[in-house]
Amino acid sequence: MHPSAEPRIPEFPDVEAAAERIRFAVRQTPVVHSATLDQALGCTLVAKCENLQVTGSFKFRGATHAVARLRSAGRDADVATHSSGNHGAALALAARNDGRQAFVVMPDNAVPDKVDAVRRHGGQVIFCAPGQAAREAGLEALVADGRIPVPPYDHPDIICGQGTAALELLTQTPDLDILMAPVGGGGLISGSAIVARHLRPDLTILAAEPAGAADTAASFQRGERVTHWQADTIADGLRALVGALPFRIIRQRLDDVLPVSEAAILEGMDLVQAHLQMTIEPSSATVIAAILEHAERFAGRRIGVIFSGGNVDTRRFPPESV
Amino acid sequence: MHPSAEPRIPEFPDVEAAAERIRFAVRQTPVVHSATLDQALGCTLVAKCENLQVTGSFKFRGATHAVARLRSAGRDADVATHSSGNHGAALALAARNDGRQAFVVMPDNAVPDKVDAVRRHGGQVIFCAPGQAAREAGLEALVADGRIPVPPYDHPDIICGQGTAALELLTQTPDLDILMAPVGGGGLISGSAIVARHLRPDLTILAAEPAGAADTAASFQRGERVTHWQADTIADGLRALVGALPFRIIRQRLDDVLPVSEAAILEGMDLVQAHLQMTIEPSSATVIAAILEHAERFAGRRIGVIFSGGNVDTRRFPPESV
Repeated sequence: MHPSAEPRIPEFPDVEAAAERIRFAVRQTPVVHSATLDQALGCTLVAKCENLQVTGSFKFRGATHAVARLRSAGRDADVATHSSGNHGAALALAARNDGRQAFVVMPDNAVPDKVDAVRRHGGQVIFCAPGQAAREAGLEALVADGRIPVPPYDHPDIICGQGTAALELLTQTPDLDILMAPVGGGGLISGSAIVARHLRPDLTILAAEPAGAADTAASFQRGERVTHWQADTIADGLRALVGALPFRIIRQRLDDVLPVSEAAILEGMDLVQAHLQMTIEPSSATVIAAILEHAERFAGRRIGVIFSGGNVDTRRFPPESV
Repeated sequence: MHPSAEPRIPEFPDVEAAAERIRFAVRQTPVVHSATLDQALGCTLVAKCENLQVTGSFKFRGATHAVARLRSAGRDADVATHSSGNHGAALALAARNDGRQAFVVMPDNAVPDKVDAVRRHGGQVIFCAPGQAAREAGLEALVADGRIPVPPYDHPDIICGQGTAALELLTQTPDLDILMAPVGGGGLISGSAIVARHLRPDLTILAAEPAGAADTAASFQRGERVTHWQADTIADGLRALVGALPFRIIRQRLDDVLPVSEAAILEGMDLVQAHLQMTIEPSSATVIAAILEHAERFAGRRIGVIFSGGNVDTRRFPPESV
């Protein structure tokens, strides 16, 4: 996992190959639909449920693929990453499934649920001080000790793994007008765009992003990656800056990046709970928020969205009955 | 909805007709699978997710069908039932979707989540003292005022509606060895048995039942319906005695009824949360419990189970992260 400065942009056959490599480990997640949610939103929506993926997020696809590629290359050392969220748990299990261990650097103020998830899936948690510098220092120390770093999004193997969700979705639901996924680091939407632009060149491809972490929207408008942004959003999975390789793909292949408000994200979570009987994390709900706040772009269309995960911070979101 | 003393047992075409009548209102729920759960259980399991059905349980199928039949018969009065659980919420929404109201008699010690669910779906809650006598008196008063009673399970229209879940499951997953669903009042398993015995005469059909509410298992063994049982189980959806019409079908068409312990039910909930990333209610988990406690009957087989609902009492089950 040593990305060169300008790695080749992966193409559709790379995602197809990834799907073949990981198909016995990842779950073909269901696609769900609700007539009453359609009425509430004024469009036809189908949702790909990566909240029901192994470890509760799409991150398990990319992590599993990255580990499979290490295995093919004969690299069998333990792996390492830094993560305050779903990538850590996903890599922990992907590594364990491959008979190795994952070391995950986490800030000592990380959400307890997320720390538990890494450990429950067999990962070793290394705490560090909060902040990007301490996290990177922690990871460097692990790499110096021989562990192989597996980045969360800025790598072709990760992007191809994440793209397998859209590959399934477009097979399960061929007749879409629009494909939309959340964007944080950009692994999911860039992998999705590779698949969708190839299979359905006329499809409108959109990303949804919290207004409080809208570096991708700003980068998309400028045509150049914004590298400073103080993220402030409840969508804890989307606080990262968009990665360099994902952004190159996003810039080429997306139609737009839609910023959404915090209030609309919360309303999106409530709508999904009420109409689809599922708890999704705030990051997932950005796609519903985008439909609520940019209704004119979606009216009467058929939209496929990807719910990226279902792991809510239970301190912040005590459950309601459904 | 005035069942005669010995109504005709519904047959497969009746369930097919029910599926046609309700198909625009109910959700075709997904079927999920987990390789790691299979390893833990020693068999291949696919689960039909009625926990993701509208209102969070299969009850919406039967309630929607019963209301559709009233509509066809030109009976447009409001409806009424007594329920401490999912049937009340399901009937509330089924009635509202048909432009009428449901009145639901609930004991004044009912779980607050369940009361909220009835109201959220547009139902009118009428509280009564706890106990069967007070509930029936409350319902009789509503019927005397002109509301049409819609029973929770002991009626052909309800049984046919519930049978549509198995109809979907056997279409989605044709190659099963065993079909299993929970049994409480018996609407779900009897509707399932009508479908399965017709489509796949060789299929093994089983019910799972809490040992603390095992009146159906006892009735099945005796060949006669047990009419007294003091239910004591965490599976609040399965405390009812099996209904007369459901039991006639169960007796004819099931292979066995398997009692399960409370500990295995809780373990089943945990396994589904860990491996399938979903919260299911204790009643649903009885099917996993049955595999845990009767492992020899399932080893190496392909089992289709129905998760009956996902509505947990949040006072009793605070969420864990996944």
